[in-house]
Amino acid sequence: MRSVFYISDGTGITAETLGHTLLTQFGDLKVNPVSLPFVDTPEKLDAVLVRIARAADHDGVPPLVFSTLIDSRLREGIAHCKGVVFDFFDAFTPRLEEALGMEAAPATGRSHGMGNLHTYTRRINALHYAMANDDGALVREYPMADLILIGVSRSGKTPTCLYLALQYGIQAANYPLTEDDLASGDLPRQLVPYRNKLFGLTVDPERLQQIRAERRPGTKYASPEQCRRELAAAESLFRREHIPFLNITFMSVEEIAATLLNQSGLQRRI
Amino acid sequence: MRSVFYISDGTGITAETLGHTLLTQFGDLKVNPVSLPFVDTPEKLDAVLVRIARAADHDGVPPLVFSTLIDSRLREGIAHCKGVVFDFFDAFTPRLEEALGMEAAPATGRSHGMGNLHTYTRRINALHYAMANDDGALVREYPMADLILIGVSRSGKTPTCLYLALQYGIQAANYPLTEDDLASGDLPRQLVPYRNKLFGLTVDPERLQQIRAERRPGTKYASPEQCRRELAAAESLFRREHIPFLNITFMSVEEIAATLLNQSGLQRRI
Repeated sequence: MRSVFYISDGTGITAETLGHTLLTQFGDLKVNPVSLPFVDTPEKLDAVLVRIARAADHDGVPPLVFSTLIDSRLREGIAHCKGVVFDFFDAFTPRLEEALGMEAAPATGRSHGMGNLHTYTRRINALHYAMANDDGALVREYPMADLILIGVSRSGKTPTCLYLALQYGIQAANYPLTEDDLASGDLPRQLVPYRNKLFGLTVDPERLQQIRAERRPGTKYASPEQCRRELAAAESLFRREHIPFLNITFMSVEEIAATLLNQSGLQRRI
Repeated sequence: MRSVFYISDGTGITAETLGHTLLTQFGDLKVNPVSLPFVDTPEKLDAVLVRIARAADHDGVPPLVFSTLIDSRLREGIAHCKGVVFDFFDAFTPRLEEALGMEAAPATGRSHGMGNLHTYTRRINALHYAMANDDGALVREYPMADLILIGVSRSGKTPTCLYLALQYGIQAANYPLTEDDLASGDLPRQLVPYRNKLFGLTVDPERLQQIRAERRPGTKYASPEQCRRELAAAESLFRREHIPFLNITFMSVEEIAATLLNQSGLQRRI
């Protein structure tokens, strides 16, 4: 087991993303990850150095240390730790300064801070919009939607709407296609005015059944037959009405969101 | 205006994080960001090269290109584009291979994919938990909470719970301190059994007033006096009951979440 440290003077999100992405290239490697955010004083760094040294002793191999520290004194400190240090800013800043013809003006904790209050507020408002417009709750707010996701129950609509809000500031509503909607075969009346905002989600019947069975085991709702019938009706509705749709069976919420933005041409708002 | 391209064979999240974090060090720089995810064939790369060349012509300066392409043929292609390329894997993979004594086994789109289905399911379940347990809705599910956030209306509880679920797989409920709760001065009865899971959020009165006024302008709810009184009562409750709390006035949801994990000692579940 290899210890991996994510060291940051801010939230640690960049250090974690950086390290995690690199480590996915070493498939079977077993690691023991430790995130140490808000390391912004020499005293806190000293405590970090002790933890790294202890892990090095315990593991018998040097830990991997992914660092996004900005302060030069702290960076010098971490460079002398008992791990192998991957310093994010060292790797790229000099070439970036050269390309821009500017010097970097280091400031801690900027990358996942509030930044511009207006932009941040937009993101939080998008999140409240997604909450209020979950599960077809508020059709009267559909004029403000950037996107309206439709699909059968548990086809991934809610997580996707929340992620779109948090990550991209997109206002997404979602509308569940009920058995009645699907039996009629028509696009639900309240969605017709917003046809160009609609995007369908679908999923393989086996996966839907599994998800529903976790929620309500042994019900008709979770039966293979019911899942198959609802999904077939939803997909044929999407096709008939020319609504773009996505099968999300093997997709994470990040992949669904990025694909929706990519296919719909919607602009990120943050 | 400088064009900035984020090129990836997956979602583009790592490329965006990489570039965004680096660019925060150049405070006033105005950029025109373009995300191009799912670039996973030579044909798609050719279209990307054309866009970069067009931006270079238009801007009169070479665009910045942050790339997390993995396939070696695509990486060779992007290296010859008309921008300044920052190749994420080039920068770190050789030293990481050396440190681990292993060769990287490149695979596209792994870092924000579903990964382990069990871990992914935990994250989505945490999100559904946060939705179901928003606003004090389901006290009977509090035994399953990793954390219960308390605070007055619009003190940041809901966005924080959702973010904790999505980013870290943490199951967080939230309970709004009502005027009745605050008037009594006691910890609400239903929270008493879960005292060790409680964490308070507070905010400066001016900021709360601003947030509430956007939602319900001209109401008592949004009045300076009401905001001040509720916050003072909440903070004195936190102090009296020894509940740890955080003033989130200048904090992003990322910073709140990372701070809560750090101070509560809760382990990330993903």
